[in-house]
Amino acid sequence: MIDGCPPRIDLSVEEIQKELDRRRPGQGLGSSPRKERDQVEIISGVFEGKTTGTPLSLLVWNEDVDSKPYEEIKDIFRPGHADFTYQAKYGIRDYRGGGRASARETIGRVAAGAVARKILEKEKIKVVAYTVELGGIRAERIDFSEIEKNGLHCPDRDAAKKMEEKIDEARIQGDTLGGIVEILAQGCPAGLGEPVFDKLEADLAKGLMSIGAVRGVEMGAGFRVAQMLGSECNDPLGPKGFEKNDAGGILGGISNGADILLRVAVKPIPSIGQEQRTVDHSMRSVSLRIHGRHDVSAIPRINPVCEAMVAIVLADHLLRQKALERG
Amino acid sequence: MIDGCPPRIDLSVEEIQKELDRRRPGQGLGSSPRKERDQVEIISGVFEGKTTGTPLSLLVWNEDVDSKPYEEIKDIFRPGHADFTYQAKYGIRDYRGGGRASARETIGRVAAGAVARKILEKEKIKVVAYTVELGGIRAERIDFSEIEKNGLHCPDRDAAKKMEEKIDEARIQGDTLGGIVEILAQGCPAGLGEPVFDKLEADLAKGLMSIGAVRGVEMGAGFRVAQMLGSECNDPLGPKGFEKNDAGGILGGISNGADILLRVAVKPIPSIGQEQRTVDHSMRSVSLRIHGRHDVSAIPRINPVCEAMVAIVLADHLLRQKALERG
Amino acid sequence: MIDGCPPRIDLSVEEIQKELDRRRPGQGLGSSPRKERDQVEIISGVFEGKTTGTPLSLLVWNEDVDSKPYEEIKDIFRPGHADFTYQAKYGIRDYRGGGRASARETIGRVAAGAVARKILEKEKIKVVAYTVELGGIRAERIDFSEIEKNGLHCPDRDAAKKMEEKIDEARIQGDTLGGIVEILAQGCPAGLGEPVFDKLEADLAKGLMSIGAVRGVEMGAGFRVAQMLGSECNDPLGPKGFEKNDAGGILGGISNGADILLRVAVKPIPSIGQEQRTVDHSMRSVSLRIHGRHDVSAIPRINPVCEAMVAIVLADHLLRQKALERG
Amino acid sequence: MIDGCPPRIDLSVEEIQKELDRRRPGQGLGSSPRKERDQVEIISGVFEGKTTGTPLSLLVWNEDVDSKPYEEIKDIFRPGHADFTYQAKYGIRDYRGGGRASARETIGRVAAGAVARKILEKEKIKVVAYTVELGGIRAERIDFSEIEKNGLHCPDRDAAKKMEEKIDEARIQGDTLGGIVEILAQGCPAGLGEPVFDKLEADLAKGLMSIGAVRGVEMGAGFRVAQMLGSECNDPLGPKGFEKNDAGGILGGISNGADILLRVAVKPIPSIGQEQRTVDHSMRSVSLRIHGRHDVSAIPRINPVCEAMVAIVLADHLLRQKALERG
Repeated sequence: MIDGCPPRIDLSVEEIQKELDRRRPGQGLGSSPRKERDQVEIISGVFEGKTTGTPLSLLVWNEDVDSKPYEEIKDIFRPGHADFTYQAKYGIRDYRGGGRASARETIGRVAAGAVARKILEKEKIKVVAYTVELGGIRAERIDFSEIEKNGLHCPDRDAAKKMEEKIDEARIQGDTLGGIVEILAQGCPAGLGEPVFDKLEADLAKGLMSIGAVRGVEMGAGFRVAQMLGSECNDPLGPKGFEKNDAGGILGGISNGADILLRVAVKPIPSIGQEQRTVDHSMRSVSLRIHGRHDVSAIPRINPVCEAMVAIVLADHLLRQKALERG
Repeated sequence: MIDGCPPRIDLSVEEIQKELDRRRPGQGLGSSPRKERDQVEIISGVFEGKTTGTPLSLLVWNEDVDSKPYEEIKDIFRPGHADFTYQAKYGIRDYRGGGRASARETIGRVAAGAVARKILEKEKIKVVAYTVELGGIRAERIDFSEIEKNGLHCPDRDAAKKMEEKIDEARIQGDTLGGIVEILAQGCPAGLGEPVFDKLEADLAKGLMSIGAVRGVEMGAGFRVAQMLGSECNDPLGPKGFEKNDAGGILGGISNGADILLRVAVKPIPSIGQEQRTVDHSMRSVSLRIHGRHDVSAIPRINPVCEAMVAIVLADHLLRQKALERG
Repeated sequence: MIDGCPPRIDLSVEEIQKELDRRRPGQGLGSSPRKERDQVEIISGVFEGKTTGTPLSLLVWNEDVDSKPYEEIKDIFRPGHADFTYQAKYGIRDYRGGGRASARETIGRVAAGAVARKILEKEKIKVVAYTVELGGIRAERIDFSEIEKNGLHCPDRDAAKKMEEKIDEARIQGDTLGGIVEILAQGCPAGLGEPVFDKLEADLAKGLMSIGAVRGVEMGAGFRVAQMLGSECNDPLGPKGFEKNDAGGILGGISNGADILLRVAVKPIPSIGQEQRTVDHSMRSVSLRIHGRHDVSAIPRINPVCEAMVAIVLADHLLRQKALERG
Repeated sequence: MIDGCPPRIDLSVEEIQKELDRRRPGQGLGSSPRKERDQVEIISGVFEGKTTGTPLSLLVWNEDVDSKPYEEIKDIFRPGHADFTYQAKYGIRDYRGGGRASARETIGRVAAGAVARKILEKEKIKVVAYTVELGGIRAERIDFSEIEKNGLHCPDRDAAKKMEEKIDEARIQGDTLGGIVEILAQGCPAGLGEPVFDKLEADLAKGLMSIGAVRGVEMGAGFRVAQMLGSECNDPLGPKGFEKNDAGGILGGISNGADILLRVAVKPIPSIGQEQRTVDHSMRSVSLRIHGRHDVSAIPRINPVCEAMVAIVLADHLLRQKALERG
């Protein structure tokens, strides 16, 4: 359900589907071979190819609903999963896959992101996410033309190859890998954001940190600022604008017209093939081995999710700002 | 203005003042000697020493209101400040100090945090922030008894001394320093947070990233997860609970009963004594030297602000959770 | 989509369906013979018959989707309908039935109301709506046992008969009728509501006024207070509580433990069989006769919708209040 | 505190004060002679006579703070007041005057309304409230030029005189009077409002019903629709727009460009001079006589409060609509 979308924006099922397809399991790289078609339907809010201004309902049926494999873990808390916390919070837990804590939940984010991107497109704002670290391998250079050429959406071809080797290695060992995704928003006008309660960076951090596997968010120079001097960290202004961008495009909660640059830390997928120590609902120790084939890394499937969250936050602030602009 | 505070909580002006005093300029360490008394008054919401359940109004007059020093920068955008973005957003800018983009804005956060802490205290939840890095010097050990013994609130006495030397050095050079603050919440029950839209880590990230100088937020192992294997990163569960805490006390948006552990990257204060290149309102290049005495680092004055934001988010989720718990 | 429902509440499809059936077209009384099965499916949020605490998704497919009859009005603004205002607001209008401005929209309200009623049931709070006026005929007495015995849900059997005659008369003339529905909530504890921004009566008024055909809302003595003296209007308090209930169960935004009593004015359905004067999209005068069979009155189908809105607001405030109650 | 006000709107203390003065006790008519100066200060959000876009803080000190007269009712629940419900909700009650349940609370509404009116003024939208009934006397005609000429803001000079006599009568008897206020918004463009969740009439009803003494709200023909036929109630459309206005300017949640017309039922002030039956905190019967001089009617002091609430809701929807309008 997406409320607040302006009317008369061209929107087709295909445009949303295209984004959903990007988050689907890939061709053997970091991803599992599970079959998920994820066909989206527009239930309301679009008429003759245009948004009507009323709430958009999108529906994606879960076609992978065999809950059998989950039976064996119905009384066991999987390490690194939300099994324990859901039980603690609600006193009841739907142990079958596909729930709120499942990665399937990101379908809604990506679908909403596709709509947000249409709003941003009108203002020529683009958002792209790419892999800058995976399994300890770092991208040494950012070549944008490379991103769509490799399955890991890494802007450094050589690093991408090493990452793939690392993935194969981890798969053999029944283990999984973490990494870092960078998100870049270009073309964003100065003036988006609010001064205190809904700072742009705060909303972006909330959006990104709400993605299941994300454990850290930074903007611009990020954690490097800890070791910088003020004279280094400040971005000087010249007649053409900011002369460097350690701020990551935001000052005091408001976009400054430079590129918005964010990075997120992605934890390794908690479903590993190795045996793990855990407990059941009675807090008795048990040994757990998760069966089935799982992704080795949330990267690169998480990349379009990151793009979606940034697009949603920017579109929201873009519309807010329009409300304040006056002749 | 604080709305939503439960009734019949003991609350005195002194308790709030105590927290405000902790964020006031210190005794020569990282801080400037500017005089800010910051006396808080409770305007409404407390009767005979107890909250009434109706909105709390707190008032702190700004007694340092000499706007003369700001006259010379009224048409100049200071690098690293929000001058440029406020002008871009609003087309008008109150160039005198003390506005929404001033560090004075954090008074409201600390005052609200003092109230939130009273709510947490009833449940024996404690929040403490301490300095783990400043000017490139890292705390090598965490000795909690040390935190209140040094002006930098650093849990490593030796590191604290080196940090102080670094501060003296920077002051002489008219420069400023960044660092890292860690925030620990102990005693938090499992079950706080929401599964998708208001995940606990997302709200914490928003709260912390909304503090002026913060450029990054991480929880638990944070950015280190990028280099971890799933088998390392997962926290095994034993009969007594989680056996380590790389998750930082939160799984799937909901607290797991372990300590909640967060770290924020704090940028160097942008007001430096050195000459800087910038532009005026007509985007003409100018050279700027900011006069007056300023803090060398936002640390340690930012520490109680970080504590406050974490306390506010936890108290909010604690009250929400109470609404759902049912006989 | 219903968010915020507590976990572990027994909830079956049948319970929701039962409420939906109550708002379906009746057996010839005020209602049209259009076929609407309105079968609800629970898509998420319930597991093994209990709510999980995560958002509930309910889905009701519109099976009456022949948009042919709407073709002839696609460029015409029907008087009393939202055609004109949707076009003015959005610049685009889905002229086929079943949109946001259709009475079908109330399905979602009734379904959500069924969930809210489950929350209220636990506290022994009951909500009932009944017809006190229709087509100028007033119920002279309130006999609760009568309400479910006649198709108009009128608590006065004699008045119900006269109302039915009035309906037949109007149907023959191709006209429609307005009326008044009274809503009574019993068993509501004192203490629900907020003192200023979300007063209980304000939220109830918003909920009820948001129902399509409602043009007025009053509580307790309602508009009669205009002619009362303070000495008449005040409800005296005795050892057993309020001795009369002109306040309608709410004082200063907060429930007082007495019955909550509200009334809404329901306008005649705007789709009449008679010829009407109106304009097309170019503001040229046209004559319009709406074909097909339509209800003669929104009453009694609107009654369960009114119940639903009151139940939703009360359940929301009940959960809020639980958050504030402390050992 | 007013957040969300656009930047660069001319705003002076005098403009806000003017509105506050209109709600102050009058010259002997319906009002008490209590002295309330209610001088407003702008604490933040205005710079050089213009709004800055950041939150506006306005402060009005309560100078009538002698809580002595309230001592005698500190353990007694006054009939018609919120004493009982505050105690039930919070378990604590500030019995001194001036709290959330005091009519003083409306100062904030009127001050915010003054700011909202500045936003509406730019679009040539005007809001005016006037007395159409008081103590059973109805205005028989609406002569706008009369409104500001009599102390009761009644558009019918003869009715105004009779109302004044009725007030004198009630004062002698130590009693109070109710009435009806009509609010008219002119110049409102078509297209303001939302289709389901925040319908314009629903937000207006919430705003008006949140005013302490209001017991009913109706729009357009209001409760009269109960007795109308559809053929009477529908407003026909001609080339120049709606040919009558029984809808009250709103269709399906969205303004239709006609005048927005609302009426509210105002209950008699509950503080009467006569002896009343009530109970104390132990639910023991007591007899109560409220001393001091009080207003005989909330009218006309409530009129600017009604205007303010309507102005605030309209300004909010105007800004929302701006966000959706796109090239």
